[in-house]
Amino acid sequence: METDPGFIAAVEEARQGQAEGGVPIGACLVSKDGKILGRGHNMRFQKGSATLHGEISALENSGRLPASAYEGATMYTTLSPCDMCTGACILYKVKRVVVGENNNFLGGEEYLKSRGIEVVVLQNEECIKLMTDFIREKPELWNEDIAV
Amino acid sequence: METDPGFIAAVEEARQGQAEGGVPIGACLVSKDGKILGRGHNMRFQKGSATLHGEISALENSGRLPASAYEGATMYTTLSPCDMCTGACILYKVKRVVVGENNNFLGGEEYLKSRGIEVVVLQNEECIKLMTDFIREKPELWNEDIAV
Repeated sequence: METDPGFIAAVEEARQGQAEGGVPIGACLVSKDGKILGRGHNMRFQKGSATLHGEISALENSGRLPASAYEGATMYTTLSPCDMCTGACILYKVKRVVVGENNNFLGGEEYLKSRGIEVVVLQNEECIKLMTDFIREKPELWNEDIAV
Repeated sequence: METDPGFIAAVEEARQGQAEGGVPIGACLVSKDGKILGRGHNMRFQKGSATLHGEISALENSGRLPASAYEGATMYTTLSPCDMCTGACILYKVKRVVVGENNNFLGGEEYLKSRGIEVVVLQNEECIKLMTDFIREKPELWNEDIAV
């Protein structure tokens, strides 16, 4: 699953976020037939955004779609989704959420499962390192992003 | 509570959304000391946005804030919040969500309560009429917004 184009795109987005000095979390929404619908990364630092987390950016960049477009879709994200992004995946009824890692942050995985969404956690080394380095270097930005 | 400046602002935002031909749902985030932090309305039609629901717009328009800014805050919204907006209120740990109406759509009110957030439902006549008219006139746009 770490070789899925959607996961590779999510990690590329996270790296891009890091290169921009922002929160290094990326996401990618992939349809049931394997088409990338949208990808994006956290834009708190870049756009002063309180809502453009990785998953929200990916959904936003997917544009307006009918409900049928999300059927069977997978949201790839480099970090366990926060409550907002968890809710967004539930709203759009994606089938599966593939999580890069949940060592640095554990979000709404159990709630996703309780709402019928499959969750797969990869504990990917690069995702862990991106977040570990970021939290060490910019703890204030990270705390702001998760509102603690 | 229907005379709270935050609720009045949320209804103004919903009317603005209606005037623009969009989904007539507005929201307003108010700090514990009564300051409007941000307000906004659904931008699906106006911006082709899949994520700028009323509450997300209000949070986005509030800009980057420290966690402390949301402490004791109230999110006023003209319609019961969907799962995404429910999650956003939980992420930012608002104290209270004031809902204009839940006749036309019942969102995550019980989940908000289970996460310690107070929910007040007003069943405001204008909010009900705005949504009733909208759903009758533009059912496709509404279904797209709630992914059904």
